[in-house]
Amino acid sequence: MNTPIVILNFKTYIESSGLNALNLAKDLESAGEETGINMVAAPQAADIYRIKQETSIPIFAQNIDAITPGGHTGHDLIETLIEAGASGSLINHSEKRMKLADIENVIELTKEKGILSCLCTNNINTSKAAATLAPDYLAVEPPELIGSGIPVSQAQPEVVEDTVKEVKAINKDIKVLCGAGISTGEDMAAAIELGAEGVLLASGIIKADSPKEALIDLVSKI
Amino acid sequence: MNTPIVILNFKTYIESSGLNALNLAKDLESAGEETGINMVAAPQAADIYRIKQETSIPIFAQNIDAITPGGHTGHDLIETLIEAGASGSLINHSEKRMKLADIENVIELTKEKGILSCLCTNNINTSKAAATLAPDYLAVEPPELIGSGIPVSQAQPEVVEDTVKEVKAINKDIKVLCGAGISTGEDMAAAIELGAEGVLLASGIIKADSPKEALIDLVSKI
Amino acid sequence: MNTPIVILNFKTYIESSGLNALNLAKDLESAGEETGINMVAAPQAADIYRIKQETSIPIFAQNIDAITPGGHTGHDLIETLIEAGASGSLINHSEKRMKLADIENVIELTKEKGILSCLCTNNINTSKAAATLAPDYLAVEPPELIGSGIPVSQAQPEVVEDTVKEVKAINKDIKVLCGAGISTGEDMAAAIELGAEGVLLASGIIKADSPKEALIDLVSKI
Amino acid sequence: MNTPIVILNFKTYIESSGLNALNLAKDLESAGEETGINMVAAPQAADIYRIKQETSIPIFAQNIDAITPGGHTGHDLIETLIEAGASGSLINHSEKRMKLADIENVIELTKEKGILSCLCTNNINTSKAAATLAPDYLAVEPPELIGSGIPVSQAQPEVVEDTVKEVKAINKDIKVLCGAGISTGEDMAAAIELGAEGVLLASGIIKADSPKEALIDLVSKI
Repeated sequence: MNTPIVILNFKTYIESSGLNALNLAKDLESAGEETGINMVAAPQAADIYRIKQETSIPIFAQNIDAITPGGHTGHDLIETLIEAGASGSLINHSEKRMKLADIENVIELTKEKGILSCLCTNNINTSKAAATLAPDYLAVEPPELIGSGIPVSQAQPEVVEDTVKEVKAINKDIKVLCGAGISTGEDMAAAIELGAEGVLLASGIIKADSPKEALIDLVSKI
Repeated sequence: MNTPIVILNFKTYIESSGLNALNLAKDLESAGEETGINMVAAPQAADIYRIKQETSIPIFAQNIDAITPGGHTGHDLIETLIEAGASGSLINHSEKRMKLADIENVIELTKEKGILSCLCTNNINTSKAAATLAPDYLAVEPPELIGSGIPVSQAQPEVVEDTVKEVKAINKDIKVLCGAGISTGEDMAAAIELGAEGVLLASGIIKADSPKEALIDLVSKI
Repeated sequence: MNTPIVILNFKTYIESSGLNALNLAKDLESAGEETGINMVAAPQAADIYRIKQETSIPIFAQNIDAITPGGHTGHDLIETLIEAGASGSLINHSEKRMKLADIENVIELTKEKGILSCLCTNNINTSKAAATLAPDYLAVEPPELIGSGIPVSQAQPEVVEDTVKEVKAINKDIKVLCGAGISTGEDMAAAIELGAEGVLLASGIIKADSPKEALIDLVSKI
Repeated sequence: MNTPIVILNFKTYIESSGLNALNLAKDLESAGEETGINMVAAPQAADIYRIKQETSIPIFAQNIDAITPGGHTGHDLIETLIEAGASGSLINHSEKRMKLADIENVIELTKEKGILSCLCTNNINTSKAAATLAPDYLAVEPPELIGSGIPVSQAQPEVVEDTVKEVKAINKDIKVLCGAGISTGEDMAAAIELGAEGVLLASGIIKADSPKEALIDLVSKI
């Protein structure tokens, strides 16, 4: 098995915005170095450039809109996000759901521009649909568990297991992650046990007293 | 009369993204210094920090979403935009129209955080409604003229004139700008003549052979 | 003072859908006849025609989209709603918030077609903005009280009172209604006392054991 | 091969609204009887009940929202649409694109309630994704050809052919339709030849001098 990946979605917490975002990215960087686990920061668009300048960790955008250069005030172009420092992006996160046609369009954009895609889904059915679009990563997160503190790997292990099975049956190259409620080493170990190749995290780490220690604990059981 | 203001909406053109955005901001900066006119850059969120580090011009975001800190993946917090370098924002641009309740909410957020608001409207009626919310700037742009090359100050002078009159009747402190199709010194002089206190520009400058010269020409007749 | 108006928003409850919608409309009709109060039904679009055929009460749509005839699959044209039987519409309900430009556009459509508009708002600021657009009715509903069972007329009397004052200062012809949490005769009497000229109701009546009795009780104290 | 199906999307044209919608539905009904082809009307929600009362043709809604009974002002519940007379619905039409999670949710709702689903897609990739959700019908329509008068069966025959092939490979029970620009007997014959099992039509028929004759011509070559 490959080394699992940890993607930390910074969302829009104060603890993960501006200078705090930079410090959190540095925590990710040193936790990644100490543990040998690939850790990715997914900050707000306005924080990407600064983090890129001061760390060397991989950075994902939290969203890419289905636009091409032109008149789209209030959006960020994929070209702009890449130039700022993004080497990938979350797509269709439960807090930024997209239309099916736009998801397909954006996945194609990421392939064309050579960056990674992590397509988020809410259940087994949408994961199968998503798998046909061939993202690099597919992160399944039951919406009712997001931010709940109840890990999906314990509350709904069959969702993780069946998503892995169904997605791999459609396209074995897609790496399946799971998210929602995961914050401890036990949670992550259980996720890996169920077939997940990584995790998508947020508040469990961001709100921890020491995010760096929480990250080290997270990967300690694998 | 006060010195008019020029706000350049960078939108999402390649010519105004990434390094090009930085260069365009420098053009704005030097054109502003040479002419004594207050020039504001409104780049994509992912370009704000970089421009702030390397220029000293005022920077507006292109949009602020009606959110507070929390789980809002794919958005930028007002706190994050300010920390990156924004001292104001466009709100409700025709390419990013907002719900009335959200406009009100975001105007309040800008006041609370002490940054400037430039609320965009499409006609006289919506300008009156917008004026009751007391933004710092109100920019009226008939949508059919945006990007058309036909200046609103010539095509629909009564829209500018009546918007100024109606807005000032509601709140005389709001500065009324006009936009849509404005790119030359004649266009801007006509706008000022009609009572506008500045302009909101985009493609006419961004796509010019020399944006800096275009900016100097723009303010040459006032 | 004029006789107050009662608008019952049927929303999308099973108790107010299909045949149940028809029966509820008949309850409104007979309660209106018995009490002399003008009662309006606001059912789902698919129920308008049926209610029109079998009752004689005024019917409002729950929403009108900012469209004109053409390719707008999945929407209902204002012409279609009128032909089905609507003589007015709610606009910008908290569960169907609209963009400012679309609100203005739809209010103009209702004037052009000669039907009534009831524009919903969430606070005093948006009520002032809304008042400049000159709807026939303006219904203020603090979103946090909708469906709460806590009447706005008791929880936030100043919202009702100040909305009436501010709206009338802008346009004295607009009738101000209040909503959110109102279901009893006391609630409605308090609302009228605060200056409201009617109420916008929903679950408090729809979910009552006997909607007709609840309606009669509602208007019993005025 | 089974008899092909013709679904006429009434959209929001004046020619297909209100009384005109009823007359168009009667044209569909008599053209269907004369030709033995299964013809389905997809009128606006507010016209469903009336058409159901006065014709016996199958009726599809143009859209179903991903809601369950409750507070969803401005929407129509699936229960309401069914009670009004709908025995199926278009889903995700290009003029009413839906989020992936909502599409999945609504397809499940249609199965639960026992009505037919016709899921619309824009290209081969999204058709594959859609096929995993197992709708009854899948209608592929390149958006640039909708309303163009240029039939997809001639302009992009490979889109039809490949969609049929890919969809059937995922789920052979899904009936593949094509749409966009189809209005004549030749267009439809070409579509059937390419493997389509029916067509989704709109303006080409609605705007014809005689919709009934246009419908009879449409199916004359198969």
